[in-house]
Amino acid sequence: MKKNLDPTKLSPWEIAYQAEKNLKKVFELAEEIELLSEELIPYGYYLAKVDYLKVIQRLKTKTYGKYIDVTAIVPTPFGEGKTTTTIGLIQGLAKKGKRVSGAIRQPSSGPTFNLKGGGTGGGLSQVLPLDKIVLGLTGDINAVMNAHNLAMVALTSRLHHEETYTDEELLKIGIKRLNIDPKRVEFPWLIDFCAQALRKVLIGLGEKKNGVLMESKFWIAPASELMAILSIAKDLQDLRERVGKIVVAYDKRGNPITTEDLEVAGAMTAWLVEALNPTLAQTIEGQPVFIHTGPFANIALGQSSIIADYLGLKLSEYHVTESGFGAEIGYEKFWNIKCRLSGLIPQAVVLVTTLRALKYHGGAPLPRKNQLLPSEYQSLRPDLVEKGCELLAHCIEIIQRSGINPVVCINQFIHDFKEEIEVVKRFCEALGVTAVCSNHWLKGGEGAVELAEAVIEACEKPNSFNFLYDTKEPLKAKIEKIAKEIYGAKEVCFTPLAKEKLEQLEKEDLTEFFVCMAKTSLSLSDNPDLRGVPKDWVFNVRDIMVFRGAKLVVPVAGEINLMPGTVSNPAFRKIDVDLKTGKIIGLE
Amino acid sequence: MKKNLDPTKLSPWEIAYQAEKNLKKVFELAEEIELLSEELIPYGYYLAKVDYLKVIQRLKTKTYGKYIDVTAIVPTPFGEGKTTTTIGLIQGLAKKGKRVSGAIRQPSSGPTFNLKGGGTGGGLSQVLPLDKIVLGLTGDINAVMNAHNLAMVALTSRLHHEETYTDEELLKIGIKRLNIDPKRVEFPWLIDFCAQALRKVLIGLGEKKNGVLMESKFWIAPASELMAILSIAKDLQDLRERVGKIVVAYDKRGNPITTEDLEVAGAMTAWLVEALNPTLAQTIEGQPVFIHTGPFANIALGQSSIIADYLGLKLSEYHVTESGFGAEIGYEKFWNIKCRLSGLIPQAVVLVTTLRALKYHGGAPLPRKNQLLPSEYQSLRPDLVEKGCELLAHCIEIIQRSGINPVVCINQFIHDFKEEIEVVKRFCEALGVTAVCSNHWLKGGEGAVELAEAVIEACEKPNSFNFLYDTKEPLKAKIEKIAKEIYGAKEVCFTPLAKEKLEQLEKEDLTEFFVCMAKTSLSLSDNPDLRGVPKDWVFNVRDIMVFRGAKLVVPVAGEINLMPGTVSNPAFRKIDVDLKTGKIIGLE
Repeated sequence: MKKNLDPTKLSPWEIAYQAEKNLKKVFELAEEIELLSEELIPYGYYLAKVDYLKVIQRLKTKTYGKYIDVTAIVPTPFGEGKTTTTIGLIQGLAKKGKRVSGAIRQPSSGPTFNLKGGGTGGGLSQVLPLDKIVLGLTGDINAVMNAHNLAMVALTSRLHHEETYTDEELLKIGIKRLNIDPKRVEFPWLIDFCAQALRKVLIGLGEKKNGVLMESKFWIAPASELMAILSIAKDLQDLRERVGKIVVAYDKRGNPITTEDLEVAGAMTAWLVEALNPTLAQTIEGQPVFIHTGPFANIALGQSSIIADYLGLKLSEYHVTESGFGAEIGYEKFWNIKCRLSGLIPQAVVLVTTLRALKYHGGAPLPRKNQLLPSEYQSLRPDLVEKGCELLAHCIEIIQRSGINPVVCINQFIHDFKEEIEVVKRFCEALGVTAVCSNHWLKGGEGAVELAEAVIEACEKPNSFNFLYDTKEPLKAKIEKIAKEIYGAKEVCFTPLAKEKLEQLEKEDLTEFFVCMAKTSLSLSDNPDLRGVPKDWVFNVRDIMVFRGAKLVVPVAGEINLMPGTVSNPAFRKIDVDLKTGKIIGLE
Repeated sequence: MKKNLDPTKLSPWEIAYQAEKNLKKVFELAEEIELLSEELIPYGYYLAKVDYLKVIQRLKTKTYGKYIDVTAIVPTPFGEGKTTTTIGLIQGLAKKGKRVSGAIRQPSSGPTFNLKGGGTGGGLSQVLPLDKIVLGLTGDINAVMNAHNLAMVALTSRLHHEETYTDEELLKIGIKRLNIDPKRVEFPWLIDFCAQALRKVLIGLGEKKNGVLMESKFWIAPASELMAILSIAKDLQDLRERVGKIVVAYDKRGNPITTEDLEVAGAMTAWLVEALNPTLAQTIEGQPVFIHTGPFANIALGQSSIIADYLGLKLSEYHVTESGFGAEIGYEKFWNIKCRLSGLIPQAVVLVTTLRALKYHGGAPLPRKNQLLPSEYQSLRPDLVEKGCELLAHCIEIIQRSGINPVVCINQFIHDFKEEIEVVKRFCEALGVTAVCSNHWLKGGEGAVELAEAVIEACEKPNSFNFLYDTKEPLKAKIEKIAKEIYGAKEVCFTPLAKEKLEQLEKEDLTEFFVCMAKTSLSLSDNPDLRGVPKDWVFNVRDIMVFRGAKLVVPVAGEINLMPGTVSNPAFRKIDVDLKTGKIIGLE
């Protein structure tokens, strides 16, 4: 059937729905990978949550498979097919007869209805069932949103009631005054769309019964501390403890106020119990893919969960996981946060690039959505590719810095020039790095066989995986190490606000805390307009947030915003429902 | 096993989890009621969405069972067990050997985490599985919330882009300027909690890229027009058309702007496709209950869906549905909106009361949460009960006005005085109305046998069901009829704003539009403090909203707010998770 599916003629969703006619029932898929039916919680016929704890316990003594991370060079604003390559590689490894699984993150409705498509791959490398995956999957992001917003409800209503009632009245119902400072509420509300209008809001307007007038803000759901916690929690107890430690605000003397202080941590956790179980889906070619936690390695941790990787590694010979955006943020967080917490060491890292991205970073004009690609992308310009390879080299070095020699994957487009591909291959060869072309978008797993072979080979080589910083280093040193050694900044500059917070934090023992940067995904630097490998630039830390439940220190750099904006020509304009099948159509 | 379950000793959730050990798998339950397995979409092992269209088509020629509505007298602020009685009656009818089903509404997280409990019944009359039902069920409310908020994202980003770009720039991407008036955005944002702080907000603060500064508001999710549409839509096409007709704002010349104008109606509908299928759950005693759409007959339509009732009526001899709050709002909307749209005629109506509610409306002090019941409720006070019966009589008359003689159900509490019960029974007898006591909370179906018998008998009596108003009557006449003939107002007063809107609306042909009042649920009147049957009072219409997709005109009366507030001693304080089982505990 796949013969009839031509990605050059059909849109991704048309391919998906054609392919779904051959979808395996989820219990059948589970049986193939030796999951027991009692370890599944079905959601319809093609998706199931996996009771990871049962699986991990059952397979306690089984050794892990090979662990492969897929990352990319700094992308263009439209992404360069990292998820597509992740799926393609899974399918390619299966073609080589390997027992393989993958882990990707649940797409956020923000990009799906705005700019970047559904985050489920493309062409003949997709994860299915498409419509369920892009429309909330099994409810995890909604659960995070509800749990998170409940904390804000608890906070704002508490503020109101403390204003309304006397100490005595409060004590009668067992409530001790917290004296929350409405000027120091750091926790946002959540919505899972790109809603620039909600970035900065004033709440509590109107009558007294509407509560305390205060400034507030909304973030996109995956940026929530709860999502980070879901990515790293090892079990329900760990989850419950971390949720309770989240600081939502400060009192008027500057003391932190946690969700536990608000007596809402238990109720928040209740929302998250099911979300702790990864969801089992499948590639177009029938390999298992676990979907878990949320995207956005720029403004969040943005990693598929540790639990999903444990599961895949127990069940497969090869498990492919994905770390979002470019190597400097996605891979750096995978490497220094996720792997440190999981104790897992990757055997291979795939660095995805496209000629388009190399040309872009080599100086070609910005491609614009719904407009013709500028001529630089359509004509033979090995000079631009060559120039862009500077960034490729930088990303290779980032991965080598972790002790692993990456496999470079050129995610091929049908009109790519052979000569330009050769430029990249030669460039990599000179660096001692294998570079392969991959046609998984056009051909599915068949197109990724060469990539799979390179990855299998890479897995056999010993590596010297090691972390960038020691957890005992001072916070400032950790931040500077990432900015200078990974991003290539000359200097790090802290605003007075950031400096003050940094100094406060340095007084604490933050050994267990990791640095999770929030910065643009469009440049190595903190300025989205600087392409390639910028020189002599200063990394500006505007603010420092602390996620005390997730145990992350989050320096916020440059103009990065935790609530993206909807563009002038958003994807939802073309999205509709097929009234006969009930399927969502018109997805990018 | 039920013998060990004593509702006087165990909390509702303890009973629920004990009872869940005997839960039928949803496919087993479906088989019992002759649903085909291919008509189910499982969500875990104990819940499934039902593909209603398949069922309705398969059973096209089958006749409907008996249709029973459960309503109540105007309640106290804590509710008087209407859902518990609905479940009890279903179980009671089963004890009488009847093939029976029910339809209830999905609980909103607002009340669950705030004041009124989970809305899943209580004691030995509950619907299961409890934790799944109160934590989002199969995702319908989340879907409504996402679909609805996407419209607001479309609106606010469009406003911003129209400010930023020239006509020419917009036309290049096929966008025609709408000239939305930011002062006339009538659509709210949604959240499914009681968040008074979000009732009135200012959005778009900060930099220019954050969009247009404007006032905005949040409603609790079930109050959304989309939820009303879900309750009355007959199929996907009907849903799509109604969604497209929703008016979200007006342009600067006063012309309505719809979701279709914003090019977001298709994407909104995509979120709702699955939500159109009711969810199959079960009572503690194993009868099928369809859970569908949202609560709040005070501020919304608040009815379980027409689709769920069609399903139940096709599958059962007796189908019990519930209409929220007191007869004056819940039943009035069931009667004049839902039945008119569905074409269904109820064979019997159960009017639930409690001695507590009668005493409350007879003048006893307000019972307060977590405090001892005032002595009036604990001592023999037939005088207060007698006085409260005035309200009971009024509610009986409301139902009789629709052409049906109700069955009064005294939802019995264990300490109820026999003498007081006799007062109610005698009172009803004098009115020619059957009144029975029911002990379903304490005893499950066994306790509701007498109620079931009275209902079976009532179903055999012919009735003269007819509507309160003719759709062709002027809007003002419809509103006045409901306020005077149903609520008992002496007069109806419109604020200048409401009057202006009314006059505008009277110029249109609103034949297909029904009146869906928004008023307090705590009084027959629009003033929550007026108990019993208030005399000589004026019904104040503060505003009139029009839901053009749902085809509802919504007069807003008194101080009613579409975003409830969280109380000072909210339920979430006691809610937590059992770390061993992952179950939510501490629910009210």
